Amino acid sequence: MENPVRYILTLRCLDAPGVIHAVSGAILDISGNILEQGQFTDEHTGIFSMRTRFETSRTDIAVFSAVADATARYSPLITLRNEAVQRRALIMVSHEDHCLVDLLYRHANGELPIDIPMIVSNHATCAAVAEQYGIPFTHITASSKEEAEAQLKGIIDDLAVDVIILARYMQILTESFCADFLGRIINIHHSFLPGFKGARAYHQAFERGVKLIGATAHFVTAELDEGPIIEQDVERVSHNQTAEDLAQIGRDLERVVLARAVRLYAEDRVLLDGKRTVIF
Amino acid sequence: MENPVRYILTLRCLDAPGVIHAVSGAILDISGNILEQGQFTDEHTGIFSMRTRFETSRTDIAVFSAVADATARYSPLITLRNEAVQRRALIMVSHEDHCLVDLLYRHANGELPIDIPMIVSNHATCAAVAEQYGIPFTHITASSKEEAEAQLKGIIDDLAVDVIILARYMQILTESFCADFLGRIINIHHSFLPGFKGARAYHQAFERGVKLIGATAHFVTAELDEGPIIEQDVERVSHNQTAEDLAQIGRDLERVVLARAVRLYAEDRVLLDGKRTVIF
Amino acid sequence: MENPVRYILTLRCLDAPGVIHAVSGAILDISGNILEQGQFTDEHTGIFSMRTRFETSRTDIAVFSAVADATARYSPLITLRNEAVQRRALIMVSHEDHCLVDLLYRHANGELPIDIPMIVSNHATCAAVAEQYGIPFTHITASSKEEAEAQLKGIIDDLAVDVIILARYMQILTESFCADFLGRIINIHHSFLPGFKGARAYHQAFERGVKLIGATAHFVTAELDEGPIIEQDVERVSHNQTAEDLAQIGRDLERVVLARAVRLYAEDRVLLDGKRTVIF
Amino acid sequence: MENPVRYILTLRCLDAPGVIHAVSGAILDISGNILEQGQFTDEHTGIFSMRTRFETSRTDIAVFSAVADATARYSPLITLRNEAVQRRALIMVSHEDHCLVDLLYRHANGELPIDIPMIVSNHATCAAVAEQYGIPFTHITASSKEEAEAQLKGIIDDLAVDVIILARYMQILTESFCADFLGRIINIHHSFLPGFKGARAYHQAFERGVKLIGATAHFVTAELDEGPIIEQDVERVSHNQTAEDLAQIGRDLERVVLARAVRLYAEDRVLLDGKRTVIF
Repeated sequence: MENPVRYILTLRCLDAPGVIHAVSGAILDISGNILEQGQFTDEHTGIFSMRTRFETSRTDIAVFSAVADATARYSPLITLRNEAVQRRALIMVSHEDHCLVDLLYRHANGELPIDIPMIVSNHATCAAVAEQYGIPFTHITASSKEEAEAQLKGIIDDLAVDVIILARYMQILTESFCADFLGRIINIHHSFLPGFKGARAYHQAFERGVKLIGATAHFVTAELDEGPIIEQDVERVSHNQTAEDLAQIGRDLERVVLARAVRLYAEDRVLLDGKRTVIF
Repeated sequence: MENPVRYILTLRCLDAPGVIHAVSGAILDISGNILEQGQFTDEHTGIFSMRTRFETSRTDIAVFSAVADATARYSPLITLRNEAVQRRALIMVSHEDHCLVDLLYRHANGELPIDIPMIVSNHATCAAVAEQYGIPFTHITASSKEEAEAQLKGIIDDLAVDVIILARYMQILTESFCADFLGRIINIHHSFLPGFKGARAYHQAFERGVKLIGATAHFVTAELDEGPIIEQDVERVSHNQTAEDLAQIGRDLERVVLARAVRLYAEDRVLLDGKRTVIF
Repeated sequence: MENPVRYILTLRCLDAPGVIHAVSGAILDISGNILEQGQFTDEHTGIFSMRTRFETSRTDIAVFSAVADATARYSPLITLRNEAVQRRALIMVSHEDHCLVDLLYRHANGELPIDIPMIVSNHATCAAVAEQYGIPFTHITASSKEEAEAQLKGIIDDLAVDVIILARYMQILTESFCADFLGRIINIHHSFLPGFKGARAYHQAFERGVKLIGATAHFVTAELDEGPIIEQDVERVSHNQTAEDLAQIGRDLERVVLARAVRLYAEDRVLLDGKRTVIF
Repeated sequence: MENPVRYILTLRCLDAPGVIHAVSGAILDISGNILEQGQFTDEHTGIFSMRTRFETSRTDIAVFSAVADATARYSPLITLRNEAVQRRALIMVSHEDHCLVDLLYRHANGELPIDIPMIVSNHATCAAVAEQYGIPFTHITASSKEEAEAQLKGIIDDLAVDVIILARYMQILTESFCADFLGRIINIHHSFLPGFKGARAYHQAFERGVKLIGATAHFVTAELDEGPIIEQDVERVSHNQTAEDLAQIGRDLERVVLARAVRLYAEDRVLLDGKRTVIF
């Protein structure tokens, strides 16, 4: 193949016979070659989800037309991305920097195929870290949450942001903001959800005496800590660890779980399926 | 040492300097040798917990006197057990037999150092399994929960039962029964508590879209699924597993987590510490 | 769909554009509906592997013809199975019965969709367990390994066995036997391979002082403990556990890892790919 | 207690009755209070190991004398450390900086109670990271391994280094250097030892087709990758991950496993016991 370009296609529609055949036919028509493919039918919702990574030497427009035409009868939701054009992520933080530092190190190291045009915070604490990694930092100071979110929306528009990563951002977003960016805000929560929602999760875990603690990366919805889960992990703890020890162990979980979720998103592997996610 | 006998001592008291020294002195006085020891001070409750396994050729009474005298000034709660005299466990089940079969297989195989004088059920389903392993089986049929529990208490007294193991027993015990046997009833719950309390935990987990499912062994208290946790574990699941798949994977977790908890109890390794447990 | 029948197709060929399209076209031509599909291209070997589960109301022969015709130009290796016709597994054991009991319990419980026409052993020890679960048991007594394997081959032919499960079978099979049944013998090894090959794996693990022990289910080849790995898992251990403790913890790993591997095989999810496996 | 000082005592001797009593007596004599204690008797080697953390208002010399006098008859190996006087760690690296950055971030963040007086490397690559965290960096350039190790020993003496951390240091140390610093060099190996010793461990793991990859922190001895293991962990992988993917996942394991091992060492929790370690 001359000058092959790699694309990632995601497609969602109501399940019906022939969707896979239609997609694979479209790719064949543009002399494409499938590199990776995943598909899933949710028997409860009847939604068919699919992700295909393929290469072809055709232009973006030709590729999109081929797929859209071939699948039109299924009225699908389609995303198509030239793999070289990375997703754009806005990172938001408050005081704690462990997730931020981890994401920026991985990004600099080539582990996270995303663009990070800016870091936004409600505090100035993390400005130095941002500077060290050469990412613009904006400290939003506003007299109200509405004003702050208006500024934030301005930034999101200006920078053509695809996804907002809440890397230990300790503010609750308004219902309308959550609705506007459904499936586009990833939060890391410091517990194994649905256990220990809200604040002071490690203290809650300590008091309950659990034998494993966890972290959860999820999409943000208006209902606090109830959004679709992307990734979770746990670590064993024991009675002789204090709440502070749990917090320290938990920081490792938070870092890794958030990084995995961001990487999955960056590779278009996370599809919404009602209150759940499909991960390819 | 001539005819050494192995003992397990547990001791709880308010923390004060000198407890370990007092215990180790008592053991030295009876020409004992410490084989294993664990101790823990809970800074929140101020409770000091300790477990010592030692051998000596003295009689039970001599051993108990030595320890009790040496530690009297700390007003401790003491348990002392000749390791050869196993804890007596009553197993209770309903319809599902996977935990029961697992416990009985391990018991027959020498993996669980407990006596199982009887299996009790609110159904006849598991009678065949009990018979196969040669354990007496009692099907309690009573017109009310109070009557059933009265029968149960009779059995517990008659058989000198130390601990009641709810191996997927699908009835809720009364508040007074729970209070009478505080720290002596072990339940296996089919979720990673505190998530998904109550019934149909795997369906709840499926609907929430968690990426790991779990099981929890805990002491039973009057508050449903809120008792002190003894052991937990989790297993990874994905979007393409149904609630029934989760239940099947979960059965493996339930078996292993309950067996671990019973073994810990059988070796006097589980000490209550308020709403939490200390595991030595 | 009237009287739908569920099929599982596996296909392996050299990677080339159009295979997925050809298969999905064949399924569409027989009015089939894809329920589940996985595919993988190994960039090192150039082998494309695929597994498709679909339903159609056509006969086995019509389905096979459709797929074979549509994919003929790729010269694939194809297996097609009516899901209702289960794989036939011969279980082989020696003295230890923990894996056997586990497989039989799961089988009786509906967790393992395989047929078990017979249990074969070089000892009589497990005859009682086989009887209890109503599976024929054959104790092979032969004067030489060659004679024993000749008897075994007779049984395999007579019973139309698809796969041989070595559930703690403590004999080494001959090179020629391994070659004859390549990809059709599953062994459970009591270590995390490639560590601790051969006998007394838990003693080796104890002496090396590892902090996790494992178990490995793998296809058997003539090279001892070097066959393609199907599944592995590990459990944490510590310095205060003896080699016997490790063996006990390890038995839980062996049970679960072997059961998972057998289930994967029973659902045609395990494809050989050189010295590795592809698991769909 | 007025001006309490916290001490950590470790003690090793041949097992004999009365050691715990002697130590607890000594601590009581200096009006000390035990905060944490662990002990272990290795039945194979006959070695008794113990770690006690306690507080007292006496001076270091008084504390040491009390313990040494009380235990003299057991001829123990004793270490006693005022908890406020941290262990001094020399970090050695080559090109890859992921473990180094992780250790330095944790150190700056207060998670690793050690002093890091210097970073030494056989390359200049990591000088910038060292500078960023304000730690002196020495690039050793020598014409032979012997000369390089002579320089290294000079540094170790000058800086009173307790432990050398090989944070992905890609040189093999000489037998005599390993012998001189037995139990004082911690290496992170990028596999689950004893599997995949030596170089290119992730490529070895990929080729073997393992389903889990691991990392191992161990003390360095003259025999490559055979030293006593301190900590290990694993992560699940699958057939569709390349050797490079394994390396990326493995970096997370290496970071966490090394950090845990360093923290254990920093808190005097790691005791050598022949070819194994005791971890309190």
